[in-house]
Amino acid sequence: MAAAVALGEAARGSTAPNPNVGCVIVSPAGDIVGRGATAPGGRPHAEAVALAEAGNAARGSTVYVTLEPCAHASERGPRCSDLLADARPERVVVALKDPDPRTAGKGIERLRSAGIAVTTGTGRKAATASLSGYLTRLRLGRPRITLKLALSIDGKIALPSGESQWITGEDAGRHVHLERARADMILVGRGTYLADAPRLDVRLPGLEERSPRRALLTRGDAVDGWEILANPQDVYRLHDVNDLLVEGGSATATAFLSEDLVDRILIYRAPIIVGEGKSSFGYVGLDVIADAHGRWRPADEQRLGIDRLEVYERVRSA
Amino acid sequence: MAAAVALGEAARGSTAPNPNVGCVIVSPAGDIVGRGATAPGGRPHAEAVALAEAGNAARGSTVYVTLEPCAHASERGPRCSDLLADARPERVVVALKDPDPRTAGKGIERLRSAGIAVTTGTGRKAATASLSGYLTRLRLGRPRITLKLALSIDGKIALPSGESQWITGEDAGRHVHLERARADMILVGRGTYLADAPRLDVRLPGLEERSPRRALLTRGDAVDGWEILANPQDVYRLHDVNDLLVEGGSATATAFLSEDLVDRILIYRAPIIVGEGKSSFGYVGLDVIADAHGRWRPADEQRLGIDRLEVYERVRSA
Ligand SMILES: NC(=O)c1ccc[n+]([C@@H]2O[C@H](COP(=O)([O-])OP(=O)(O)OC[C@H]3O[C@@H](n4cnc5c(N)ncnc54)[C@H](OP(=O)(O)O)[C@@H]3O)[C@@H](O)[C@H]2O)c1
Ligand SMILES: NC(=O)c1ccc[n+]([C@@H]2O[C@H](COP(=O)([O-])OP(=O)(O)OC[C@H]3O[C@@H](n4cnc5c(N)ncnc54)[C@H](OP(=O)(O)O)[C@@H]3O)[C@@H](O)[C@H]2O)c1
Ligand SMILES: [Zn+2]
Ligand SMILES: [Zn+2]
Repeated sequence: MAAAVALGEAARGSTAPNPNVGCVIVSPAGDIVGRGATAPGGRPHAEAVALAEAGNAARGSTVYVTLEPCAHASERGPRCSDLLADARPERVVVALKDPDPRTAGKGIERLRSAGIAVTTGTGRKAATASLSGYLTRLRLGRPRITLKLALSIDGKIALPSGESQWITGEDAGRHVHLERARADMILVGRGTYLADAPRLDVRLPGLEERSPRRALLTRGDAVDGWEILANPQDVYRLHDVNDLLVEGGSATATAFLSEDLVDRILIYRAPIIVGEGKSSFGYVGLDVIADAHGRWRPADEQRLGIDRLEVYERVRSA
Repeated sequence: MAAAVALGEAARGSTAPNPNVGCVIVSPAGDIVGRGATAPGGRPHAEAVALAEAGNAARGSTVYVTLEPCAHASERGPRCSDLLADARPERVVVALKDPDPRTAGKGIERLRSAGIAVTTGTGRKAATASLSGYLTRLRLGRPRITLKLALSIDGKIALPSGESQWITGEDAGRHVHLERARADMILVGRGTYLADAPRLDVRLPGLEERSPRRALLTRGDAVDGWEILANPQDVYRLHDVNDLLVEGGSATATAFLSEDLVDRILIYRAPIIVGEGKSSFGYVGLDVIADAHGRWRPADEQRLGIDRLEVYERVRSA
């Protein structure tokens, strides 16, 4: 299942509004005979890709797939549950049930009625993390929103002059570009657009094609090549975005935090002291320190050259 | 040598102006027959304590000591190099030469003239870290200065109201108290004294006696129970302090940083966002981001419950 999750994760940012599913088919002898991920644009599905590679070798095999195979008819392609029923694997291992009501449980039912054994839950945690853009969109009606900032030890995003390049180094930069490749859309505030004229593209060998759509947060006019969000609540209108990456600046980050529209924070922390400068955030509604606790869970951390990546996830009860 | 360093480290904060040395004596059979650390107030020395425990078992043994045994006469006690020469170990392993000109090299010479084998350099790195208060005082004529702050993700030390309790949790608190026990003196600015009325004592079972001297940074009048520093440069007058712990607030931290009087920074980082609030530091002399780089080395990091400790060390070129 780890291999299936890795395939799905590599497709993150290119499949919306479809989920970035991964699929691996293993022969009775233990060889991988098929691999697939949801294709760019969302079709063909991961299972279809993997089955096409496996051909007859799918018969009697075990199929690992990160999300329940689809059960709904679409003019864009066949149902994966039907494709699998035809291919006659011995077993299908599903990490997560699909919350999409058109499939939810029905994909698994179709497989079982066709006499195929189905196991669920294997690799659930990793699959949930990788599919969380899609899952958030279905659950909350908006993309999973990640806020990314490059900060000093003392939490500054820029000097008073607005200078912020470069707080972090090359390794952090490469990691940011990978996160960009995995997002469907990147957004900055108009202030950052004016100050830094950021390209927000993916400058990684082989991933240049994965540069996501660019958006500006502004109450002002449209800008060529950029989509516009007139306020943070507009994220509820982004039906074809699973993963939205917000790259600042301070006013934009504050607006998203104030409306509780951030699910994940990536802090690329440089071992520098800025002192007087632009703070990460303005007033976010906090009036006593006690209320600040319990909202963010340290989810991951990692050295990136001399810098460090800190990942925090919003704790939401239910 | 690791055991000797551990003994010396446990004595840090209680031996100034003497170094916090550790000593372990190992018999030819490999048993530890003597252990010592510099006693509170600086005498007796670690070697004397360890030799007293070992008695005749010191003969033929190997002595591990974190700093070169002293060679200078003092009315407060005998020379350790003489005590060792009399005890007739086979070998003395010294982590670091003593930069004190009264000993520097002479302690080792005296041992060698007495026919004892001497090895140097074993465990140098750990011994240097543990003795760095003493070493800094000899090299720079002032204590090793550690700045400690409890910060949010966004680098705030308090709300606009001044409220800062509590940013970090219990595990971080325990670690702070241990750092206090290892300091000879703790300092806060008058603003923090007025805002928080901090006790700055050590509230750890068994270490209550290790509460260090307390000092205030203020241009104002003396306060009962507190020593006064009228400005950061006064650290050059603290001849009996190896380790000085500066616990804020912002103006005080900024003053020490601006005068390049910080050797080590301890950030206890809580997974909270404060937003509008008091920044860690004001203007520290930085006008372009590029100049901020290369000054601080990430030296250590550690989880403390839900919080994280980040340790940075000042990079000084010779
Ligand atoms: N270190 C980092 O990671 C990092 C990242 C990004 C930027 N920066 C730095 O941050 C600085 C820019 O930050 P900033 O705070 O000045 O600007 P910003 O957040 O990039 O942009 C502010 C603009 O966003 C729009 N906006 C903000 N809140 C809004 C809301 N609720 N609804 C609609 N529009 C909204 C407004 O645009 P209109 O006025 O057009 O309506 C506002 O003027 C620059 O110095 C940049 O270098 C640093
Ligand atoms: N999160 C944390 O780790 C942490 C730690 C400590 C404090 N805090 C918070 O920080 C706030 C207090 O910080 P603050 O910046 O207002 O005050 P502060 O740094 O504690 O104290 C400022 C005072 O220190 C003296 N001072 C500063 N620079 C000096 C210099 N160069 N020479 C001589 N004296 C100097 C002055 O005292 P005189 O006016 O008497 O001359 C000045 O008023 C409080 O809200 C407290 O809760 C947070
Ligand atoms: Zn499908
Ligand atoms: Zn001695």
